Amino acid sequence: MMLQLQCLSSQTLNPKLCPFHSLSNSKGNGFGSISVTESTSIKKKKLYVKCRQSEYYEQKSFSASPSNSSYAPTDVAVGTLPTRVYVGHSIYKGKAALTVEPRGPEFVSLDSGAVKLSREGFVMLQFAPAAGVRQYDWSRKQVFSLSVTEIGSLVALGARESCEFFHDPFKGKSEEGKVRKVLKVEPLPDGSGHFFNLSVQNKLINLDESIYIPVTRAEYTVLVSAFNFILPYLLGWHAYASTIRADDTARTNNANPRYGGDYEWNR
Amino acid sequence: MMLQLQCLSSQTLNPKLCPFHSLSNSKGNGFGSISVTESTSIKKKKLYVKCRQSEYYEQKSFSASPSNSSYAPTDVAVGTLPTRVYVGHSIYKGKAALTVEPRGPEFVSLDSGAVKLSREGFVMLQFAPAAGVRQYDWSRKQVFSLSVTEIGSLVALGARESCEFFHDPFKGKSEEGKVRKVLKVEPLPDGSGHFFNLSVQNKLINLDESIYIPVTRAEYTVLVSAFNFILPYLLGWHAYASTIRADDTARTNNANPRYGGDYEWNR
Amino acid sequence: MMLQLQCLSSQTLNPKLCPFHSLSNSKGNGFGSISVTESTSIKKKKLYVKCRQSEYYEQKSFSASPSNSSYAPTDVAVGTLPTRVYVGHSIYKGKAALTVEPRGPEFVSLDSGAVKLSREGFVMLQFAPAAGVRQYDWSRKQVFSLSVTEIGSLVALGARESCEFFHDPFKGKSEEGKVRKVLKVEPLPDGSGHFFNLSVQNKLINLDESIYIPVTRAEYTVLVSAFNFILPYLLGWHAYASTIRADDTARTNNANPRYGGDYEWNR
Amino acid sequence: MMLQLQCLSSQTLNPKLCPFHSLSNSKGNGFGSISVTESTSIKKKKLYVKCRQSEYYEQKSFSASPSNSSYAPTDVAVGTLPTRVYVGHSIYKGKAALTVEPRGPEFVSLDSGAVKLSREGFVMLQFAPAAGVRQYDWSRKQVFSLSVTEIGSLVALGARESCEFFHDPFKGKSEEGKVRKVLKVEPLPDGSGHFFNLSVQNKLINLDESIYIPVTRAEYTVLVSAFNFILPYLLGWHAYASTIRADDTARTNNANPRYGGDYEWNR
Repeated sequence: MMLQLQCLSSQTLNPKLCPFHSLSNSKGNGFGSISVTESTSIKKKKLYVKCRQSEYYEQKSFSASPSNSSYAPTDVAVGTLPTRVYVGHSIYKGKAALTVEPRGPEFVSLDSGAVKLSREGFVMLQFAPAAGVRQYDWSRKQVFSLSVTEIGSLVALGARESCEFFHDPFKGKSEEGKVRKVLKVEPLPDGSGHFFNLSVQNKLINLDESIYIPVTRAEYTVLVSAFNFILPYLLGWHAYASTIRADDTARTNNANPRYGGDYEWNR
Repeated sequence: MMLQLQCLSSQTLNPKLCPFHSLSNSKGNGFGSISVTESTSIKKKKLYVKCRQSEYYEQKSFSASPSNSSYAPTDVAVGTLPTRVYVGHSIYKGKAALTVEPRGPEFVSLDSGAVKLSREGFVMLQFAPAAGVRQYDWSRKQVFSLSVTEIGSLVALGARESCEFFHDPFKGKSEEGKVRKVLKVEPLPDGSGHFFNLSVQNKLINLDESIYIPVTRAEYTVLVSAFNFILPYLLGWHAYASTIRADDTARTNNANPRYGGDYEWNR
Repeated sequence: MMLQLQCLSSQTLNPKLCPFHSLSNSKGNGFGSISVTESTSIKKKKLYVKCRQSEYYEQKSFSASPSNSSYAPTDVAVGTLPTRVYVGHSIYKGKAALTVEPRGPEFVSLDSGAVKLSREGFVMLQFAPAAGVRQYDWSRKQVFSLSVTEIGSLVALGARESCEFFHDPFKGKSEEGKVRKVLKVEPLPDGSGHFFNLSVQNKLINLDESIYIPVTRAEYTVLVSAFNFILPYLLGWHAYASTIRADDTARTNNANPRYGGDYEWNR
Repeated sequence: MMLQLQCLSSQTLNPKLCPFHSLSNSKGNGFGSISVTESTSIKKKKLYVKCRQSEYYEQKSFSASPSNSSYAPTDVAVGTLPTRVYVGHSIYKGKAALTVEPRGPEFVSLDSGAVKLSREGFVMLQFAPAAGVRQYDWSRKQVFSLSVTEIGSLVALGARESCEFFHDPFKGKSEEGKVRKVLKVEPLPDGSGHFFNLSVQNKLINLDESIYIPVTRAEYTVLVSAFNFILPYLLGWHAYASTIRADDTARTNNANPRYGGDYEWNR
């Protein structure tokens, strides 16, 4: 399997090694400005399925003999297609509800067998207006996806500070400019928290909506704690961290020096 | 996956997808105000046991042949009923002791095979009055469960600030109002820490008790550090995070786009 | 195995359930004041070895057949006696060196099969005087073990604040008072960091030594980051956290309600 | 274990146990000042490969029978040579791009079977000048490796503060002084973030280059969050933490007291 991977190659695998590599809009709002979008100059294998694992599935499916079914489940994602886990954290108030939910990054497999972060994760905000006492109309929800840097803004936001993000979901597509979303986060007058206000102007369906929800300092603290937890996962740094193992290093040192061509020392 | 979920929509599986979904009291004290409580309109499978795992148990029980006993224990919870781990952190003072202990969230399995957070975790505080020198009367202990947002309040609490939480353990039940608990956290006069004061008025057993314990700044810092660690677990975000794996993503990208029906870009 | 464990019982397993449970000195310095020391009223099984694992060892030892040696190493500690990992972080200065190293907590197995934190972990500081240019005399090193609360003090310490800890390694033993250790952490005059000063007076060997080392703000920040990381491990909360799994909960909910006898709601 | 170590003391295995152990420059810039560099007086086994694992590889290679292929992949690094994971986080601006990427620590295996951190990890900064609209010339990139303490400086840096690091990649080698790198991090005039400026003077190839990139407060917050996450990994403390397991401790307590020869209590 590893051999198979290594047969494919002679490509520009790592954008950092490519002079004049073309990147997407570096100043746009939202994700355009943050994530390294999919450049056609990188050969990727999106459809790649690890042989090892598909073999394993087969065994599980076609064999009932006890001798090959020993199994150590270590988390919800092991050995099967990953189980979806929904972990929206919600804040319910009189006029609206806000649900906050992480969305993981994406990786691509390179021909070398390595894996590369291809798109950073984000945090999805969902706003629903109230439709009665303790009832929320989720059919009218509006969503706003916070990029890693926007999460940084919210984490750093002082008690008396405000910030504002503009998104155009169709940026770079033919409907660009037809939908405009603005998220404003402003301090409550008495300093006891922040107002979250999402305005959506959608010319495609002639919609102009604005949803407000007050978030107390305690609730904001929970969001910041959750954001600080999830940020390294959105960056994929946890995946790198999981490869740092005390019992691997001796081997790594030997076979595969950690300090490759771009190590400061070697320039 | 998202489609499948929406097919089943005669049951309201995901409150976020349900217009006018009725939610429990969003302004009550304590947990009522935070966690999505168990609405009878959500079809859940509380009794669900993963076949894969029960198979595994059988093999362990009925077979002594070495060929099926390969086993990789990865944590205390793998492959058997989860081992209970008691990790109460205690602060002992002259007049009382305080033990702080996390309690995990609850999940439910959806018909789709996905898993959904159904109840956020909390932190249990236990107060016991002293009953002599370095002796505490745990038979007279009083407990107070901090919700995620209440934990946020304590994490954000300034050195000179105080906060107060009210709980009615029987809220919404026939004995509502019979038991009233108040936790006050107030700065010590010299600013060297905070007083924790739990008052419990229980008309059912004619009890009226108040337990005080001073918590130094150093002790408070340990609590905040532990709270910051445990918060993402109480929200279930660690469970989502554990599904973000570099070697899964290519597959996920292909079979099951992460950006489903409610992705901002697709509206 | 689980059955066997459950046969033993009718003891006071959980100190929190024991009225008038006697505790060790709650006001002493250092560890005496923090960890729940070993009370004779708790039946513990320190010599407990999991059958499952010793079986596993045997198989590894006595069998060379491929059919029973499938194995998934997940960390350095799996399936064998735990590998020791030395991770002392050192600060080297002109007159002394300081090494900081975590030491994990201890757990005991209860008759119920549960596991209970019996002693919180700590952080070991080791001070060695310089013995020449970039040479340190580790034979003259002095050690100081920071309890969880003392770590909290250092984490909370402001740039212009100082703190001081007193330890008597023989507290409660016959040599009590013979050795006296004082760790002072004081701001540098120019506010660029802190001085760590460990003084040891040992009347048993007629030693009176004091080692100073300046720690810059950057170095202190690294210590605080490391302390914040390790604190939940020292408390054992990571072990509890590792039992919170999305795919276990349905089972747990069913068989074994998380909300036991001391749940706030049930009082 | 501790005894065994001390038997071997004609080799100086553990610098902490060695009087007058010679250390590398403790005041140099960059890594020289932080990591314990490889002293020839320490016997290491860099080529060490765990037998257990090489056995496993063989089975995977030479056998196709289902009975020995049960397998529980737990992370990208299990059971095969570790997959490389590239997780550079990039900030793209008009005149330059900055990529930030962690590099794990190194461990060595001691004769005792224990593992010891031999070199702390670091964070690699890569600066590339712009070469057109949204194009960056990575062939002209300059790199700068932040040591653990330098990361501490950046984490602690106030909004109005600046810091500066000097590196000589050839320090201690024959080309010492030929290449000089300076990283300055200075507040933007309006306080909205920091300027990162890397200057490289390379007399070997007659290069004198300076790359500037502004980093907003939000972007800086993301860096700090990522740095705080990765620091314990760079120190190797996660590897120690992974050996702290609730189900190991009873065994450990019995066979191998955690409190060895240098425990404060035993002096």
